[in-house]
Amino acid sequence: MEELKAYAELKVRFNEVDSMAIVWHGNYVKYFEDARIAFGEKYHLGYLDIYAKGYYAPVVKMDFKFLNPLIFGDSFIAEAVYVPCEGAKIRFTYNIRRKSDNEIVATGSTTQVFLDLKYQLSLYCPEFYNEWKTEHGV
Amino acid sequence: MEELKAYAELKVRFNEVDSMAIVWHGNYVKYFEDARIAFGEKYHLGYLDIYAKGYYAPVVKMDFKFLNPLIFGDSFIAEAVYVPCEGAKIRFTYNIRRKSDNEIVATGSTTQVFLDLKYQLSLYCPEFYNEWKTEHGV
Amino acid sequence: MEELKAYAELKVRFNEVDSMAIVWHGNYVKYFEDARIAFGEKYHLGYLDIYAKGYYAPVVKMDFKFLNPLIFGDSFIAEAVYVPCEGAKIRFTYNIRRKSDNEIVATGSTTQVFLDLKYQLSLYCPEFYNEWKTEHGV
Amino acid sequence: MEELKAYAELKVRFNEVDSMAIVWHGNYVKYFEDARIAFGEKYHLGYLDIYAKGYYAPVVKMDFKFLNPLIFGDSFIAEAVYVPCEGAKIRFTYNIRRKSDNEIVATGSTTQVFLDLKYQLSLYCPEFYNEWKTEHGV
Repeated sequence: MEELKAYAELKVRFNEVDSMAIVWHGNYVKYFEDARIAFGEKYHLGYLDIYAKGYYAPVVKMDFKFLNPLIFGDSFIAEAVYVPCEGAKIRFTYNIRRKSDNEIVATGSTTQVFLDLKYQLSLYCPEFYNEWKTEHGV
Repeated sequence: MEELKAYAELKVRFNEVDSMAIVWHGNYVKYFEDARIAFGEKYHLGYLDIYAKGYYAPVVKMDFKFLNPLIFGDSFIAEAVYVPCEGAKIRFTYNIRRKSDNEIVATGSTTQVFLDLKYQLSLYCPEFYNEWKTEHGV
Repeated sequence: MEELKAYAELKVRFNEVDSMAIVWHGNYVKYFEDARIAFGEKYHLGYLDIYAKGYYAPVVKMDFKFLNPLIFGDSFIAEAVYVPCEGAKIRFTYNIRRKSDNEIVATGSTTQVFLDLKYQLSLYCPEFYNEWKTEHGV
Repeated sequence: MEELKAYAELKVRFNEVDSMAIVWHGNYVKYFEDARIAFGEKYHLGYLDIYAKGYYAPVVKMDFKFLNPLIFGDSFIAEAVYVPCEGAKIRFTYNIRRKSDNEIVATGSTTQVFLDLKYQLSLYCPEFYNEWKTEHGV
């Protein structure tokens, strides 16, 4: 089975760098989200797609590992890789790769669940997501 | 006539400081907003009060003057002063004062207008705001 | 042995809330940092204390679990609990507790390492940190 | 004389949108900065160029006018236009243009001054900047 993945090409903004002159670790949450949104666009599983089906998909778990700092002006690739899983969840792993030397500078993962528009947790997998899984062979 | 004003007591966060080791200028937008929210709480003109009356009050103009930098750990006061004005607008001026020496480090102003919940601009002053003005003598 | 811990009292800012009207998950990185900074102040293990000893202490791992959303205006407590560990690391666990009902809305942890001021990883535990550990019985 | 200008192509991030589902006004500071950085790259007047000459160039004044909201997913152009001026200052005006309909959604300006690396204000125009002006005919 082929991996489903997508990526965003990004560049470190001045305001993302802290007083150590490296990217403040909290900004990687945005980079992961950019990768996830690129995935959503490519595979029609974006926030707005999900909302149109009557659900929110908030992040309920996330973790990050920082291997190497990025600095102001660095270009990098944020990639989201879909992790097939049972149940009413969307899972991704991520890697952030610096363009100059192709080195992985950060990795991590997120888990999202489904809430209906009244913010009630969906215990069962929404039908549209089952269909999406089938369609993409995951 | 007495000035209507309110303030928030704040402290510079690590992640608000840039690679020059001073507060990144964009963070002052948050400080002004904190002052404005303190005003809203004190005088019942907060986002939620306004929303409950059927309006949004987005910022349509803002300006900032930076006189002195704040650094990580600095404690400061962000004050919002209500500026009486004709028409369907909310205007504030602001000053940010460092606590250690009471020096003003930044000033500025914002203007908000009223949109109804369909995002249409309100050309007339909403009744609740007229009443609020009367009640507060402005 | 007594736990070493500290907390920050915080309130959700308007700009921390996303279009679902709940706190955007990335903002919890700031809340954890606020707790960690409160810890640093209380126990003299802050960024500036560490820097004065010739080290940076960047976050190299972090994870988050979101149990319940916070909304605009919510007051909450962000607590950092020191986790004793061998080696040249600083570890904390965190919990975020909503004030209105004392419910835990998020938990997580961070790991920091030591870099010297040339950004080289310190493989050994800096002497000042060993002394700090001894002094605090951890 | 030809205008000196540069632009960045951007897209609204999920985390830049507030609970009104429009871009939070504070994010335009980042968009202006992105345009300014694009200018710095194109004309060799970036933060790092300036730093290499022994100066910081902090923003000391900025103003914004919001004409139309951007929403999640909107693509837009942030353009910085150099404003020739006497003295030790860098001035830009900005416009943000939505790509779908080419409408200007925000405008504004910034002023930067020069500090030496000890954070002392440079009252005279740094020589490198005079040369830069001459070279670019402004």
